[in-house]
Amino acid sequence: MSAAAANDAYDRLTACFGRRGTINEAAAVLGWDAATMMPPGGAVARGEQLGVLAGLAHAAITEDEMPDDLAAAEAGIDQLDAWDAANLRLMRHAHTRAAVLPGALVEAQARANSTCEKIWREARRTGDFALVREALDEVISLVREQADGLAGALGLSPYDALMDGYQRGIGVADVGPIFAAYETFLRDALPRAEALQNTRPAPIRPAGPFPAATQEALCRRMSGRAGLEAEHSRLDRSAHPFCGGTPTDVRITTRYDESDFSQSLMGVMHETGHALYERGLPPGFARQPVGEAAGMAAHESQSLIIEMQACRSEPYLAAMASELAASFGPDAAYTGPNLARLLRRVGRGFIRVDADEMTYPAHVILRFRLEQALVSGDLAVADLPGAWNEGMGSLLGVTPPTDTQGCLQDIHWYDGAVGYFPSYTLGAMAAAQLMAAARRALPDIDVALGQADLAPLVGWLRSHVHAQASRYGFNDLLRAATGKPLDPADFTAHLTARYLT
Amino acid sequence: MSAAAANDAYDRLTACFGRRGTINEAAAVLGWDAATMMPPGGAVARGEQLGVLAGLAHAAITEDEMPDDLAAAEAGIDQLDAWDAANLRLMRHAHTRAAVLPGALVEAQARANSTCEKIWREARRTGDFALVREALDEVISLVREQADGLAGALGLSPYDALMDGYQRGIGVADVGPIFAAYETFLRDALPRAEALQNTRPAPIRPAGPFPAATQEALCRRMSGRAGLEAEHSRLDRSAHPFCGGTPTDVRITTRYDESDFSQSLMGVMHETGHALYERGLPPGFARQPVGEAAGMAAHESQSLIIEMQACRSEPYLAAMASELAASFGPDAAYTGPNLARLLRRVGRGFIRVDADEMTYPAHVILRFRLEQALVSGDLAVADLPGAWNEGMGSLLGVTPPTDTQGCLQDIHWYDGAVGYFPSYTLGAMAAAQLMAAARRALPDIDVALGQADLAPLVGWLRSHVHAQASRYGFNDLLRAATGKPLDPADFTAHLTARYLT
Repeated sequence: MSAAAANDAYDRLTACFGRRGTINEAAAVLGWDAATMMPPGGAVARGEQLGVLAGLAHAAITEDEMPDDLAAAEAGIDQLDAWDAANLRLMRHAHTRAAVLPGALVEAQARANSTCEKIWREARRTGDFALVREALDEVISLVREQADGLAGALGLSPYDALMDGYQRGIGVADVGPIFAAYETFLRDALPRAEALQNTRPAPIRPAGPFPAATQEALCRRMSGRAGLEAEHSRLDRSAHPFCGGTPTDVRITTRYDESDFSQSLMGVMHETGHALYERGLPPGFARQPVGEAAGMAAHESQSLIIEMQACRSEPYLAAMASELAASFGPDAAYTGPNLARLLRRVGRGFIRVDADEMTYPAHVILRFRLEQALVSGDLAVADLPGAWNEGMGSLLGVTPPTDTQGCLQDIHWYDGAVGYFPSYTLGAMAAAQLMAAARRALPDIDVALGQADLAPLVGWLRSHVHAQASRYGFNDLLRAATGKPLDPADFTAHLTARYLT
Repeated sequence: MSAAAANDAYDRLTACFGRRGTINEAAAVLGWDAATMMPPGGAVARGEQLGVLAGLAHAAITEDEMPDDLAAAEAGIDQLDAWDAANLRLMRHAHTRAAVLPGALVEAQARANSTCEKIWREARRTGDFALVREALDEVISLVREQADGLAGALGLSPYDALMDGYQRGIGVADVGPIFAAYETFLRDALPRAEALQNTRPAPIRPAGPFPAATQEALCRRMSGRAGLEAEHSRLDRSAHPFCGGTPTDVRITTRYDESDFSQSLMGVMHETGHALYERGLPPGFARQPVGEAAGMAAHESQSLIIEMQACRSEPYLAAMASELAASFGPDAAYTGPNLARLLRRVGRGFIRVDADEMTYPAHVILRFRLEQALVSGDLAVADLPGAWNEGMGSLLGVTPPTDTQGCLQDIHWYDGAVGYFPSYTLGAMAAAQLMAAARRALPDIDVALGQADLAPLVGWLRSHVHAQASRYGFNDLLRAATGKPLDPADFTAHLTARYLT
């Protein structure tokens, strides 16, 4: 195999992956549109459009020539620089994942997920798990087939093969011990944090109301000051906040509650963190595997370092107090210390997305354990509600009064997404670790935060995280940025400092 | 060839064309987004997304198996019903058009059009034709190559082959005599209409201002009463009004001038006509060639029958006067007769899109003649401004002071769209012919129009035009709906009744 032939093969691969990336960009904009702009009558056609695009993206990297091109390029990998070599390894990985699953299974999953997700909406509304049990059974049974197929091709356990789809290279062996240790930490820390919280004044809730238009203007201003440029972004409304679009056209959404400013503002800062990551990916590798964000846990670390680490820090909250007064008029509630009491409150709730940063991992640990049991077959779908409630009792000492507040609350499983949940907590832990490193590198960071200025932090993230894209795996990315792989000690130290002192 | 094999071949063809249709739907939504929602920084990536989708749509109907499948299906065409047989003929036509052009030419055109269009924006702004001459030369030279290629495959003249791309089956032999006769009509009618207009009171302009939000609410209400359902449509803002999206999710746009209500309102009714056509296409043939609108002239007939025939009729204008007063407050200008004087005013202007319905065809005739000469080579691009101004002098007796008001005003040629312009006037003529037939079928139509109720007219259009989709060609569609092929006498009779009596 000549070097020239290896080069040609690599060039053909980059063209195929570039086409896939471009198709995925189109799908991302259509997905955003479906959640923000599309009239309801367009839903059926949109589903078909996204289905065809998914098929085309899949076809782009499973062409008949691809195995030969991969082998030819790999024979010349020593001639590639570090970025291109990493890209080639990711191409192999993506091809393996894409090529191993039979088309019939992929289609059956798309159908089953779509059916189940629709029934789930009704089941969640009525709290009737029995309604969706059969559909979820079908989804989980197909997920098991998918997991078995991937496991064989990747040399992983079935559940690890699913996790790998969300955060490449991270599995139960990495996460299990970390979560077990966190459970131990939480059993001690949560009662102490609650006791300490109870010794302090109750937070004053600002009177409001908070007109949606004023909230939106404030969100735009704060997001802009965090570095998100209007030239390359949008902020819109949707039922569930998300960050979508593409790196040069990133689109975040939120919803406005006129009795509470904090949901939209903190939500927008969270999505801004995701958006800044996309904006900071290296344009030279746009649409190539190595140019993508490093995974869902890495992505969540970027939203949480903005929302939880920076925007809930004391200096930032003091700056936010002035911004709130300027937007909504003066209120005794708008002081840094009061905002800290309001926005950094621990408590035992039923709902993951409403949880504080200390109890949030308990919600994730529950799901992590249950989904492993669902995939292995140790837990039958019919037994999910009971197992859920038991787990909540054991982890947080509370029992959801209805399945709507229990095992029906999250869309993930009902839409076929199994193995995703750990990313939330891995991201929270990585955010604390990155923040600790950023603080060491930027001694004046609190001065900037005190002016609601995220530029120093975001600049550090740009070079240490965003610009690295998928050059490294999750732990190597952290090692390059912070000197060590994921170390939950920074997260527990952060929680200890914020909630136990 | 067995009937079963022919059936199988036809099924494979419908699958390929369905995939193309779905890809085109995705592209339509992305095109809408680019004009309404996209931040400027997304433009480069969007161009690449649309380019890849165009390539995939092209590939879907030029697969290697398609010629064999077409031949096999055609061998069994007698077994197909009328709709499927028409669909198969249109598949052959679309395949011929798509397959004959070399990929290198298609790409060269995409590049040249995009380059020229960008320069044209600057040239139009500055009135400097010389700036864009070279780029337009390249565009026209490639259009000639395209026309020659299509002409050979379709057995048409090069210019007819271009026209066929916008309104299948209609060429110079159809349009030339009609336009020549219209020129003769206009030479007599326009001075008489002007003289008559001058004997009548000048229209009173309502004082305004017309807040954009109030205009938008009015536009939504009137469009809704015309039959466009919110469940399946959107109304947004864009620099240039258009109708985009897909049949179950149709998206119209307008712009608001706070000193003039009529641009947005009449524009929205125009786009509503286009939208109603898309909404009325038969769902059973969605994404198939036979299920598409019958061409650009047919499409324009549907916008103009709403905007010009129905909404500028005396009974509708009387109803509109009440709506305007309800929206903007009372004003002496809001009477049916005054609105008629205001919105049905003839005059000799430079700008096509601002022209009244009597002089509009002169703008089209000018372009029709000039673009034929450009394609044949009888007219050099360098000589376009002079020929333009000479033509305007001859047709309307006016000379544009600058090329911005002359040959630089329309994007079409600079974007490679040659052969499109005749559709505007064919559509206007077809609208008059369809309205005459609808009046014969619906004797009480003026009662409904007097209540701003377009349901009877739209109902008639639904069955006679919309639901017919591309089952017929342009003239056969008119023949089935009105008893005769395109007959410009209905249009001149309409103009005579409205402007000369």
